Amino acid sequence: MTTNPSWTLRSYPTAMPTVDNWALEDRPMPQAAEGELLVKTLWLSVDPYMRGRISPAKNYAAGFKIGDLMLGGGIGEVISSEAPDFQPGQIVISDYFGWQPFTVIPASTAKLVTTTDAPMQAALSYLGMPGLTAYFALLKTASPKAGETVLISAASGAVGQIAGQIARIKGLDPVAVAGTDEKLEWCRELGYRAGINHRQSADLVADVAAACPNGVDVFIDNTAGPIHDAAMLNLNTFGRVVVVGTIALADRFDQPDIGLRHLRKTLITRARIEGFLLDDHESEYDAAIADLLAWHKQGLLHTREDVAEGIETVPHALVRMLKGENFGKQLVRL
Amino acid sequence: MTTNPSWTLRSYPTAMPTVDNWALEDRPMPQAAEGELLVKTLWLSVDPYMRGRISPAKNYAAGFKIGDLMLGGGIGEVISSEAPDFQPGQIVISDYFGWQPFTVIPASTAKLVTTTDAPMQAALSYLGMPGLTAYFALLKTASPKAGETVLISAASGAVGQIAGQIARIKGLDPVAVAGTDEKLEWCRELGYRAGINHRQSADLVADVAAACPNGVDVFIDNTAGPIHDAAMLNLNTFGRVVVVGTIALADRFDQPDIGLRHLRKTLITRARIEGFLLDDHESEYDAAIADLLAWHKQGLLHTREDVAEGIETVPHALVRMLKGENFGKQLVRL
Repeated sequence: MTTNPSWTLRSYPTAMPTVDNWALEDRPMPQAAEGELLVKTLWLSVDPYMRGRISPAKNYAAGFKIGDLMLGGGIGEVISSEAPDFQPGQIVISDYFGWQPFTVIPASTAKLVTTTDAPMQAALSYLGMPGLTAYFALLKTASPKAGETVLISAASGAVGQIAGQIARIKGLDPVAVAGTDEKLEWCRELGYRAGINHRQSADLVADVAAACPNGVDVFIDNTAGPIHDAAMLNLNTFGRVVVVGTIALADRFDQPDIGLRHLRKTLITRARIEGFLLDDHESEYDAAIADLLAWHKQGLLHTREDVAEGIETVPHALVRMLKGENFGKQLVRL
Repeated sequence: MTTNPSWTLRSYPTAMPTVDNWALEDRPMPQAAEGELLVKTLWLSVDPYMRGRISPAKNYAAGFKIGDLMLGGGIGEVISSEAPDFQPGQIVISDYFGWQPFTVIPASTAKLVTTTDAPMQAALSYLGMPGLTAYFALLKTASPKAGETVLISAASGAVGQIAGQIARIKGLDPVAVAGTDEKLEWCRELGYRAGINHRQSADLVADVAAACPNGVDVFIDNTAGPIHDAAMLNLNTFGRVVVVGTIALADRFDQPDIGLRHLRKTLITRARIEGFLLDDHESEYDAAIADLLAWHKQGLLHTREDVAEGIETVPHALVRMLKGENFGKQLVRL
């Protein structure tokens, strides 16, 4: 286990993933071919979408096969470059980092991490995929009007923490749903007006109603599951629901999701329910990052990271995030 | 039963309504007060939304109470007017006709039926609520692009028959779902490319897939229920689902609708699912009616009515329509 310990997929989970679904293999030091970069991994990101990649079900992209090296978002230092736009020593970000200390990435997927106003790992958090997701899901897909009540699930998570603060910045009325009182307390510090602990709630529909006395105008749905029901049952006329994630289904990902259907409510409220994928907004990333960075520099955007240490911890970090045991954006530092 | 036999609500149905849910009472000849019209009823319309009005559940508007006179869309001749804009002999339409031969309507809800190019009852069908619903649900809410596959449930019904033909006129690829082979044959005559008999299908998901080899881009959902599932499971990326009606739930209206939920599919396809209410488009009715009438005069819009005769038949006509036993727009002629 000394050369390049690398995580591969050992088996598809049938319920909540466990660390046994992965294997740590020693691999030789990789070499960059034409158009590739050899990179020393500094940070890896574990994200909810990875649950879909370790399922045999159809998804955005083809999932991992058994035995495949795991890939995900990461940041690292270029060791050697076989591409003209990159030189050794540069810090790059890509969605195709192997879960390994030294990894080879296609240069076409790499971007320089250039911001001097934030630590590099911000590019995996509020200046990257989660922050941009919050930005576009709330401001573009949901199109909220000032004063509207915005309910956000997984509110202290990587997306939710940013969404709640953008809602506050834009004069909206953000309400948090999270799984511990500590997370909700932090959400209130961020600017969420109210919060609901869904793990402690005996009646989530009533608790959402109490926390949202004017009803729910916008629901940023990071979870699916019972929180989705509680939001739908409190949705206002012309309510907007942005389906950003389904982490509440992580333990039954390949089973049919059976439950309440809300077609009468959708009809009566003229709700708009829309699925969200960040890639669809790529042409507007630069403007959004400029906003996010400006808000951060103005002290309007605070973030929290949950950092695991060492290559050995990557599957564990993913599993605890899927269970909601993390607190803030889950990262792994190598 | 000679003066003014009038249908009142006797009980809320707990499953599929039966004619016993209504009572036919003799009532005295009504009189128009200030701002009202006394009208001789010529046509009454029964429509799927009425299922929601005979439920104690919350809906668009307050429902009927036990003992209330039933109200709905109708056309009649003004007998006496207590409003300056109307005179005896005029033919008017309103959504507030009592289910009775002589009825009093607020003049503010009445409009003259003026078209000389169509029979008056067209104002309850393709030039009225169902035709406008098809028009806006398809062309505005769904925003289809030429060549897209449009799946339409209750395809031979009052809304579906018009939606399929508008789809054809606009260069789309309409596919019908209906409950009898006769209805589907007629749908093909109207211009639907293919059809699925949902009552005969052993595997609706597979049958929709076979009828829509390029997938479903737009689904005009007049039914909810299993047809909704089959459409969702065949939905393309950026698919649009317009929830127009839920008639498949008519027999379990006040029970929770439990079944497959499609949040993963919504996320992965970035689907947009939107509830539709015609009233939201009122400012554009005139332009839409001009289009519908022009298409009709050009021979591009054919319609079918299912006409019951006499005041005694109104509840029966509503029930058979809710069961899908009608064929075309269900009307009652007095």
